[in-house]
Amino acid sequence: MIAEKMKALVANNSAVRAMFEEGAKLKAIYGEENVFDFSLGNPNVAPPETVKEAIYDILENEEPTRVHGYMSNAGFETTRYAVAGSLNKRFNTSYTEHNIIMSVGAGSALNVILKTILNPGEEVITFAPYFLEYGGYVRNYDGQLTVVPADTETFQPNLDAFAELLSENTRAVIINTPHNPTGVIYSDETLSRLTRIMRKQEEKNGSPIFLISDEPYRALAYDGAVVPWVPDYYKNTFVAYSFSKALSLPGERIGYIVIPNQVEDHENVIAAATIATRVMGMVNAPSLMQLVIERCIDEKCDVAYYENNRNQLYNGLTGFGFECVKPEGAFYLWMKSPIPDEKEFVEAAKEFNILMVPGSSFACPGYVRLAYCVSFETIMASMEAFGKLAEKYNL
Amino acid sequence: MIAEKMKALVANNSAVRAMFEEGAKLKAIYGEENVFDFSLGNPNVAPPETVKEAIYDILENEEPTRVHGYMSNAGFETTRYAVAGSLNKRFNTSYTEHNIIMSVGAGSALNVILKTILNPGEEVITFAPYFLEYGGYVRNYDGQLTVVPADTETFQPNLDAFAELLSENTRAVIINTPHNPTGVIYSDETLSRLTRIMRKQEEKNGSPIFLISDEPYRALAYDGAVVPWVPDYYKNTFVAYSFSKALSLPGERIGYIVIPNQVEDHENVIAAATIATRVMGMVNAPSLMQLVIERCIDEKCDVAYYENNRNQLYNGLTGFGFECVKPEGAFYLWMKSPIPDEKEFVEAAKEFNILMVPGSSFACPGYVRLAYCVSFETIMASMEAFGKLAEKYNL
Repeated sequence: MIAEKMKALVANNSAVRAMFEEGAKLKAIYGEENVFDFSLGNPNVAPPETVKEAIYDILENEEPTRVHGYMSNAGFETTRYAVAGSLNKRFNTSYTEHNIIMSVGAGSALNVILKTILNPGEEVITFAPYFLEYGGYVRNYDGQLTVVPADTETFQPNLDAFAELLSENTRAVIINTPHNPTGVIYSDETLSRLTRIMRKQEEKNGSPIFLISDEPYRALAYDGAVVPWVPDYYKNTFVAYSFSKALSLPGERIGYIVIPNQVEDHENVIAAATIATRVMGMVNAPSLMQLVIERCIDEKCDVAYYENNRNQLYNGLTGFGFECVKPEGAFYLWMKSPIPDEKEFVEAAKEFNILMVPGSSFACPGYVRLAYCVSFETIMASMEAFGKLAEKYNL
Repeated sequence: MIAEKMKALVANNSAVRAMFEEGAKLKAIYGEENVFDFSLGNPNVAPPETVKEAIYDILENEEPTRVHGYMSNAGFETTRYAVAGSLNKRFNTSYTEHNIIMSVGAGSALNVILKTILNPGEEVITFAPYFLEYGGYVRNYDGQLTVVPADTETFQPNLDAFAELLSENTRAVIINTPHNPTGVIYSDETLSRLTRIMRKQEEKNGSPIFLISDEPYRALAYDGAVVPWVPDYYKNTFVAYSFSKALSLPGERIGYIVIPNQVEDHENVIAAATIATRVMGMVNAPSLMQLVIERCIDEKCDVAYYENNRNQLYNGLTGFGFECVKPEGAFYLWMKSPIPDEKEFVEAAKEFNILMVPGSSFACPGYVRLAYCVSFETIMASMEAFGKLAEKYNL
């Protein structure tokens, strides 16, 4: 009874659900505190107190028909002005509210961008490992996703392979930095070379190739690492941002799209993205949360908590002999499976009540992802279990 | 630079924007209080006080990582349970939380439903006059929208024409009750006959035709009018609801989809609609507002205010000799243009600082829509202007 296009999605989802149900079963048997669940990217750190204060301030002092009412499909002008101002201060840019469209989180931002630019049959390129939802997003507009194989030395994008895969049919490239699932931040060198390659292909094609920078983890960078501002490297760049992680508001679905004036035909592109927000049915980003963002634009949740988690988990696991990519940002740790079949490894870890996601779920088998947006106590308590897991594999 | 499909949407949007800008210009010249703007469906009545109280209660007493966190893509189980309970109480049904998917307003609800069931080339039927966005929604999934001409006697759907238009290729029918732009509530008789025709065609086709009931105005019914519960009439019914009008929360984007167990293959359909919510990028309905809904499920804004507006506007306009459909629900008044070209009439009304929407914008020329979700004072103050407008046309 369902649409043909939905059938594969439903079938695939059953596998994901089975994984969840197994986790829930383990927790029911052993008690929640005795299961070390590193499978979910749901922030455990609370939003900063200023979020709550902002909500109180808005409800007490603003007109309720404005607070909860319709506004332009692009969002409140005041909110977009605040977003532009924050970006300008941090990245020395000169955006105005016209360059900003508020979105229903980064997921909707990416969909709005793809709806705006993608024609059926056109190609979008991304880099393994990658967030598999990109495939669904691209297929929503009948595009084709091409995946560049991973550079398993650095987990920076594999640019040699990328240069060979770009084609006449390439319409867009999606990057994600700081990166899910590896925790890597795309370096200045990476972005310089990546965009050089794209410019060359743009010239060859005689039409733009858009760079879409998916940045929900921008606020989570450790050891003072800098996350380069991608539009500085390339004119035809869209930025998709979300406050899900910076302010621990993933359920609120609040983010934004940046469309710089440097984007070719930017007036039409901005108009189309605004209309896409409406015609896809979202209409606008949630209104109260837009006003919250306006007041908390430069606030952050307790990022040091994640950094501390990262240090403990990375040091603990490498101490046991596991091979890990040291995360520079986001809240994921990317670990090499000690055996080639990482799904078997994930199964074995369950014997010790450790839940992880196999790299195959990011198109990169042989690795696993651990989400460390969990309590520090969980990480500490998991160490013994990881020790036994290491022993099992003679590390 | 934009996708081919977006080009017509951008071109059409410029016309809408021109209309808005003209209204803004009038207000700048004559002062906001001297322009009688009946063009916008943005509620002017505040949400009930219980909405604010619910937000305070949630922020004080619930875990912030839950309040603002991810949950199942279908929404919080507790919220869906509350929605199902309210429906069961009001309509004597036996839904559970599994029959409810929380949505980003009615616009997203309709898109999720269409994404779930519609294959490229399949037909969706609706009835003029209608909310033109339906066309965009159907084209999002490469469907074809067929519009049944209006029954200008009653503005109930024209079922004779409908029976002739249904075909082998018909996959879904969208109805809207209480109705934008006419204020009509689809009667028991209408729904009985409409669904009889659909069942007959279903048998002929040997495959289901889905009935999609778009009901954001359900809470706004006057003179004690009953809005029939559509799934009572037809098994393969989806309901798309929004709290935008009932609770005056249009900017918050919060609504739900009902998929009864009577829908053929309902398990798969529910799974697909849940996944569609994710893969279209919304991921889930805004979390704080879900928890608000849970606490305010049977609350309503001041509907009597709209009823009072309706009475004044309807009595005033008919008193001047205008021919109007008496609204049974929603907050729109549908008036016959005294001249065949209603766009000319809309232009003439601007001379008296009256702003209305031409019926052509609802695929029903010869009529105009007045949104009376404005202050009672605006309606009173507009009477003199309408008097002059009537005089101009010798009514």
